[in-house]
Amino acid sequence: MVMVKMVEDGAALPEIQAVFDEIKTARKSDWINNFWKVLASHPPTLHRIWATIKEVMAPGAIDPLTKEMLYIAVSVTNNCEYCIHSHTAAAKNKGMTDDMLKELLAVVGVANETNRLANGYQMPVDEKFKPKFD
Amino acid sequence: MVMVKMVEDGAALPEIQAVFDEIKTARKSDWINNFWKVLASHPPTLHRIWATIKEVMAPGAIDPLTKEMLYIAVSVTNNCEYCIHSHTAAAKNKGMTDDMLKELLAVVGVANETNRLANGYQMPVDEKFKPKFD
Amino acid sequence: MVMVKMVEDGAALPEIQAVFDEIKTARKSDWINNFWKVLASHPPTLHRIWATIKEVMAPGAIDPLTKEMLYIAVSVTNNCEYCIHSHTAAAKNKGMTDDMLKELLAVVGVANETNRLANGYQMPVDEKFKPKFD
Amino acid sequence: MVMVKMVEDGAALPEIQAVFDEIKTARKSDWINNFWKVLASHPPTLHRIWATIKEVMAPGAIDPLTKEMLYIAVSVTNNCEYCIHSHTAAAKNKGMTDDMLKELLAVVGVANETNRLANGYQMPVDEKFKPKFD
Amino acid sequence: MVMVKMVEDGAALPEIQAVFDEIKTARKSDWINNFWKVLASHPPTLHRIWATIKEVMAPGAIDPLTKEMLYIAVSVTNNCEYCIHSHTAAAKNKGMTDDMLKELLAVVGVANETNRLANGYQMPVDEKFKPKFD
Amino acid sequence: MVMVKMVEDGAALPEIQAVFDEIKTARKSDWINNFWKVLASHPPTLHRIWATIKEVMAPGAIDPLTKEMLYIAVSVTNNCEYCIHSHTAAAKNKGMTDDMLKELLAVVGVANETNRLANGYQMPVDEKFKPKFD
Repeated sequence: MVMVKMVEDGAALPEIQAVFDEIKTARKSDWINNFWKVLASHPPTLHRIWATIKEVMAPGAIDPLTKEMLYIAVSVTNNCEYCIHSHTAAAKNKGMTDDMLKELLAVVGVANETNRLANGYQMPVDEKFKPKFD
Repeated sequence: MVMVKMVEDGAALPEIQAVFDEIKTARKSDWINNFWKVLASHPPTLHRIWATIKEVMAPGAIDPLTKEMLYIAVSVTNNCEYCIHSHTAAAKNKGMTDDMLKELLAVVGVANETNRLANGYQMPVDEKFKPKFD
Repeated sequence: MVMVKMVEDGAALPEIQAVFDEIKTARKSDWINNFWKVLASHPPTLHRIWATIKEVMAPGAIDPLTKEMLYIAVSVTNNCEYCIHSHTAAAKNKGMTDDMLKELLAVVGVANETNRLANGYQMPVDEKFKPKFD
Repeated sequence: MVMVKMVEDGAALPEIQAVFDEIKTARKSDWINNFWKVLASHPPTLHRIWATIKEVMAPGAIDPLTKEMLYIAVSVTNNCEYCIHSHTAAAKNKGMTDDMLKELLAVVGVANETNRLANGYQMPVDEKFKPKFD
Repeated sequence: MVMVKMVEDGAALPEIQAVFDEIKTARKSDWINNFWKVLASHPPTLHRIWATIKEVMAPGAIDPLTKEMLYIAVSVTNNCEYCIHSHTAAAKNKGMTDDMLKELLAVVGVANETNRLANGYQMPVDEKFKPKFD
Repeated sequence: MVMVKMVEDGAALPEIQAVFDEIKTARKSDWINNFWKVLASHPPTLHRIWATIKEVMAPGAIDPLTKEMLYIAVSVTNNCEYCIHSHTAAAKNKGMTDDMLKELLAVVGVANETNRLANGYQMPVDEKFKPKFD
């Protein structure tokens, strides 16, 4: 049950509608998902998070599809239902196939398993793994 | 402080040494990291995890470097020091640059942030995000 | 789907009803929320948790509203839907405004982000931050 | 780096020393571990947690060794280094063998893995699994 | 909302149906729960996880009921709704009583609490707790 | 073992040194902690996180000390050693007493406990707790 009243696309104050319009343009989409409608209830957060997402998810040394898959890996580990759905949809829009999703989830599962084996056995970090800087 | 006595490469029983040798061959490497030396204290786990890693981390619909980066994303979210070090080293061996690591960590950070915004506001999943199957 | 049969207010054994009555008196309220109705299925837990909550959430060096907000911060980080709802309601009863909730969630989001940046980069704790005791 | 000055056994105020003595008697031990020396810096917490541990970890429908193993399972999942060490030691004192520890960690690892498969695929709970109460 | 189309028992390809049949035989049951129907969408994962579960959950140094309770402890800590339901049902099938479930949850709750006290106070691991190997 | 080479205060490129100088001025401090020296290895992250912290941690509907305590609550729940140390130091600078820290940790502990009781029992959210918007 959402904690605040969502701001609807088309019924927002100009400052908020401008962000909605920018999101739609950037995504070549004609609708706004609930994430932004909720954040619009707190304009400073709306502006900050949209600026952050634009910067961090942009193509760079890592391509946007891989970034979406990293997002899914985190969201599954944290069990964020909203984020699992929204970023799986986003990754599919960027070309993630069903087989890729299944392999992604297999990796996420195994990483969560071996994280606990490493912690449970209190494995010492190998000297060779420690970064060296002169 | 490791919880069990590690089994050293070269001083292992034949059944274990065979796994060590296979790991070294597969990785074109001449040493065994602590993860495997610790698991070797419990041969069923050693065999099972090595078989799992071989299958899940192999090239498939997702390439091995991307799989390593997904592993890092999970390990950072869970704060597994051993796994962060070992998989960052593995990813670098497979071609991850410093800039890629930094972008990866930026995505992991933001995903952890927005996961909590979605949870904290109890955002409802958009109908459009829900998968449909006929 | 709740795991045990809830004990209803007014239909409880005397020992349990006494706790229910104390909760209602303490909260100046005429109803019991599900948290307590569920715990009443295990009287030792009901008694222990109520005694704990009374002690830990009481005014002290930190005021009760701030304590409720700390509770929300933990519950959002852990993604406990029940606790997010119940402690947001409790905090509002104690004076938390909508703007305070939104700022709280912004802080929780950013803390979850920077926690992963610190872990992912394996940042060393500064000497100046380490407490000293003579 | 511990956040408060620990209270040493033998150098504590009478109220605290009484708890220390009770802990030593209950454990048939002649020393106090750091967990209690730290909590002794805040007497209400010391009293509350000791009363809680005495009640919750006592023999009941579940035996004390199994309770210690459950404690380890949680501590490994949360990656609490102190708790992993202290409860592994406690479990060994109560009869946990090395083979039991290794099987425990295997279960904890797999549970963490399948938790993420269930979350990642957003598996719906089977009707048959939902508890029914008349 | 499940992310893939589930494979129904009786309507599966022979390779998958063989696993379903093995699961039903092993469990002396005539139905397949959603966990397996979902994993069947990715046969390598279905085979791997079933082999893993068979091995790890088998009677060994720890009995199957205790293993199910460890599974619940992890699933509750991670808040995996599906896993909490499925493993609570499995544990009840293996003899877990309601009182055992309630004590289990009490231990899980307290372990999660003391994990944070240990972390928050940054408690140093006692020398006596550190395993020694000659 | 830090993953990148830290950028030292006084030896940074002008663009980075400008951020360092702004941090020192804002904090009325003459040194830079490792968090910023590490992020300086990735200037976009340094700029973005500093802008975020400035905005989110500023006085608003919630005062800066309470925001620091919320930060600690999250960091303890996630077990981020660096963040626990740095934000405990920051909170003390802003007036958090030892008694406040101890009460904070007590609340964080109990919240982590009751989060798991709510999840483990799968408690249903009370209708009265669900926000209503007309």
